[in-house]
Amino acid sequence: MNPLLMIPGPVTLHQRVLSAMAKPMINHRSKEFAEIYDECVSILKDVFRTKNDVFILSGSGTAGMEAAVSNVVDGNDVLTIVNGKFGERFKEIADLYGNTIPVEYRWGNSIELEDVEVALESGTKVVTMVHNETSTGILNPAKEVAALARKYDALFVMDGITSIGGMDVPIDKWGVDIAIAGSQKCMAAPPGLVAVSVSERAWEHIKDARAPYYLDLKEYKKYANKEVTQTPYTPAIPLFFALHEALRMLREEGIQEIINRHRRYAEAVRNAIRSMRLELFPCLNDISEYSNTVTAVNMPEGITDKQLRDGVKGKGVIIAGGQGYLAGKIFRIGNMGAISEKEILITIRVLESVLAEHGLETKGMGATAAEQILKSWSYLHP
Amino acid sequence: MNPLLMIPGPVTLHQRVLSAMAKPMINHRSKEFAEIYDECVSILKDVFRTKNDVFILSGSGTAGMEAAVSNVVDGNDVLTIVNGKFGERFKEIADLYGNTIPVEYRWGNSIELEDVEVALESGTKVVTMVHNETSTGILNPAKEVAALARKYDALFVMDGITSIGGMDVPIDKWGVDIAIAGSQKCMAAPPGLVAVSVSERAWEHIKDARAPYYLDLKEYKKYANKEVTQTPYTPAIPLFFALHEALRMLREEGIQEIINRHRRYAEAVRNAIRSMRLELFPCLNDISEYSNTVTAVNMPEGITDKQLRDGVKGKGVIIAGGQGYLAGKIFRIGNMGAISEKEILITIRVLESVLAEHGLETKGMGATAAEQILKSWSYLHP
Repeated sequence: MNPLLMIPGPVTLHQRVLSAMAKPMINHRSKEFAEIYDECVSILKDVFRTKNDVFILSGSGTAGMEAAVSNVVDGNDVLTIVNGKFGERFKEIADLYGNTIPVEYRWGNSIELEDVEVALESGTKVVTMVHNETSTGILNPAKEVAALARKYDALFVMDGITSIGGMDVPIDKWGVDIAIAGSQKCMAAPPGLVAVSVSERAWEHIKDARAPYYLDLKEYKKYANKEVTQTPYTPAIPLFFALHEALRMLREEGIQEIINRHRRYAEAVRNAIRSMRLELFPCLNDISEYSNTVTAVNMPEGITDKQLRDGVKGKGVIIAGGQGYLAGKIFRIGNMGAISEKEILITIRVLESVLAEHGLETKGMGATAAEQILKSWSYLHP
Repeated sequence: MNPLLMIPGPVTLHQRVLSAMAKPMINHRSKEFAEIYDECVSILKDVFRTKNDVFILSGSGTAGMEAAVSNVVDGNDVLTIVNGKFGERFKEIADLYGNTIPVEYRWGNSIELEDVEVALESGTKVVTMVHNETSTGILNPAKEVAALARKYDALFVMDGITSIGGMDVPIDKWGVDIAIAGSQKCMAAPPGLVAVSVSERAWEHIKDARAPYYLDLKEYKKYANKEVTQTPYTPAIPLFFALHEALRMLREEGIQEIINRHRRYAEAVRNAIRSMRLELFPCLNDISEYSNTVTAVNMPEGITDKQLRDGVKGKGVIIAGGQGYLAGKIFRIGNMGAISEKEILITIRVLESVLAEHGLETKGMGATAAEQILKSWSYLHP
């Protein structure tokens, strides 16, 4: 039996998506490929809720983050908001292309809008932020930061890698100039592709920037506008087959239904964690929220990271540890991908069973609490 | 029926390789992934005939070319040898990172070693060249240019994207400092991965360069050296499943056998073309050779590019046109991938049939000539 992947990406894929990859290769400069690419972009625009250009690059989420930054930053100031590993990564990337003005918090702490506004007053024209900070399980206030960026006439570049498709992220309504979504997260496709949306305001900056050759968005636009849509460089064709199928399944399920599903599953996990007397890791203020795609939990006393994750793995479930300085201090449960309520409950039961083996008896209260949410959710959130 | 892909990549894949991609996702930070990655690298080292480090990046061949250049060029001079579209691409990439000293030829013409040596005397410390110029069907003199680069203490950065795995390319013997191979070419895996080998001499340059974040080879080395091998950013997992299977098949067939196969097929195509009184496009001097993975042919009078390629496609075979200013002037036949003699003969027969429909009767001489080579080859090349 295959282990159950409950990490924050790569996620469990549906058999339809897996089978799509086994199709024979096609010419990437053909109508056949263009139709697949175009339909992916069309569905992605609905997912992003945007009329902006959307491009699909063959690379990881990090490639998308670098495409976003390098195309609009060329020696200028960048306000980089950091409260976790991926915010830190945005800053590291921005350091390569410009002069970063960091607004930093301890990983897991909330962002304060006042700090962002003070930093914006310095006149920086680009702001980067991770919407859903996978490393800590925090949903950062993208709507509010987007509005602040707009107020100070700065571009807002947002990593939506693990939020777009799983939470409500209305790119145009909020005014996100560049947004990035990963294939292997909420969209339940394999890793290796990244979608990037670009606003008209962003294009104004892009025309003068010197991005890496492979990540130059001007080229992606040029090739997307050919008579038959192309990508500038050979695309990872089987991953496009998979993304195409995953996006069709997303459309069949319905975007709002998928957002509800992620929220319901995350609430079930959080309720289970609380009922087991474990602590959620994030330290939230008013404006931040718990992520609805990944839950970060403080490692309880009496068990080590290795004992916990190896124990869970031994029972067929893969969960994630902490990253960077959080290694060993937290564990994380993702709830994206082609999973159902059953997989949420299995994960909680397996977790409880491993904790019990180390003297941390929870008497099944976690699974009961998760079940409660899963059953009553439609009543609680009509 | 699926059309037969006879373009210079992506290529036809074996069912084993296609099926490998349909496997469920795994955690990319796991021993399971590390084993796959490590075995791929181990076989690739045999293919490259190198003891140098080899890394596999999730990106196209162009991403590999940019990784190679950006990690060793940082404002310094680069000698860029150009005699086709991909040589041109190397130059465009090098323009982003340094000061290029081009040694340029009309696309399809041979490189003259004297020109390279004169340019090297200027003191440049990096030379880029495409080994197998896919756009023109020329095999450039990599061994000789490598020796010249060594003589002048310059690094030799070689695009072996469409040669490594299909021709004899002894990286260490020749002294290639950075070599690049694409997954979707001779190795008969899908597009989306690129392998890069790095010599000790190259590492000396790399330590100070400011490469793009996504393409920073120092990070790939750092993660490859972890207790359990990792990639710095989420790898395109299904493509690794596929490459792994393709490389195992390569090992089963035998590297020398695969080199022979590519040469035999290319000779068969060339013999067919000549017998049909068509002209091979490249204009070769003593030191250059015809490519053994792709054959470029001048478009005969009496038929247009569109008529030829649409006609061939209508009969189930996909061949390639010319790129850049060669569009409409040449057509190209690739002979890489999971194909057999039958597919070579089908391609030639279909080509002859389309030519005949446009009044260019060849009386089956092409197929006969191809068959002759395919049958007698082991006798001619013992």
